[in-house]
Amino acid sequence: MKELQERIMRDGKVLSASVLKVDSFLNHQVDPRLTMQIGQAFAKRFEGERITKVLTIEASGIHFAMATAYTLGVPFIYAKKKKAITLSEEVYAAPVHSFTRQETYQISVARQYLSAEDRILIVDDFLATGAALVGLTQIIKESGAQLVGIGAVIEKSFQEGRGLLEQAGVRIESLARIQSMSTEHIEFIEPASSLV
Amino acid sequence: MKELQERIMRDGKVLSASVLKVDSFLNHQVDPRLTMQIGQAFAKRFEGERITKVLTIEASGIHFAMATAYTLGVPFIYAKKKKAITLSEEVYAAPVHSFTRQETYQISVARQYLSAEDRILIVDDFLATGAALVGLTQIIKESGAQLVGIGAVIEKSFQEGRGLLEQAGVRIESLARIQSMSTEHIEFIEPASSLV
Repeated sequence: MKELQERIMRDGKVLSASVLKVDSFLNHQVDPRLTMQIGQAFAKRFEGERITKVLTIEASGIHFAMATAYTLGVPFIYAKKKKAITLSEEVYAAPVHSFTRQETYQISVARQYLSAEDRILIVDDFLATGAALVGLTQIIKESGAQLVGIGAVIEKSFQEGRGLLEQAGVRIESLARIQSMSTEHIEFIEPASSLV
Repeated sequence: MKELQERIMRDGKVLSASVLKVDSFLNHQVDPRLTMQIGQAFAKRFEGERITKVLTIEASGIHFAMATAYTLGVPFIYAKKKKAITLSEEVYAAPVHSFTRQETYQISVARQYLSAEDRILIVDDFLATGAALVGLTQIIKESGAQLVGIGAVIEKSFQEGRGLLEQAGVRIESLARIQSMSTEHIEFIEPASSLV
């Protein structure tokens, strides 16, 4: 997505070879027009997939799920994050290890909102290690619903997330795929100049 | 807002005289069309106020901030919640006591995203004790920005939040004001039948 890549180049801040800060326009402070365009781009890429629900994780995926689900005309669900593992008959849950924070938390979705009839599109802000997204795919599998694919706003292609998920047969659509980055330069797999 | 009140009556679940569950259409699982209408309603009520940014708190306020800011054509910010108090030169912060969870957490906004030139509209899902909203008003005050008002999706009018905030001179617009509720019945201050 050309406009997104150009915005990342203009307003993104590379803090290290693996940390990209986008909190002036995608998380913390958010550009709602760009967010809506992101939702429209996901809807277009998964056109014809008869998606029934969009799934994301709180908090930084919520506005992208909102924009995507609004465009598709279906509900969205945001999985809750909890520190403590509380087993319950009422939720599907999966553990997620955060490499950034060096801690394991639990994500959960109420059982009543996922069923075997559902065709689910997952969306999230980043695809990096893939830990959180793998957790979401486990929840979908447990519910019996069909996973249509994953839409990631930004992919750090130099981390293992895409490989892990593709091995499991998951279709991935990322709107900006970063091949490598440094404080001086961000290299995209498809340069903005090549995009429409 | 007529459609919202009717939806609360149809799909809301009153768990006790003070707990209303709306997680099938407003939080956890979300109806994006209703959410967009909520954002449009806030934008209309604060029309002419020259709002420059919308402010909310993660996670359950984010989609309402998205819908409101999208309609107004301005950015939104979601304050971060943290358990530990980490003082920093880079953020405005305020402590918030959660009566539901019996714990105090910190909310924060990066200083660079609020300035004395800003005219801020706060939106959130619930106005009840007002604790989180009072925290947000403290952050705005510290930044020197102007608080235009607060938009709450659902107000539990039998709790102290509105009184606290009105004493501080804050304009409040709630789209559904609940006077009282029980497992059998929800009583609104303005019945849906009286609304356009």
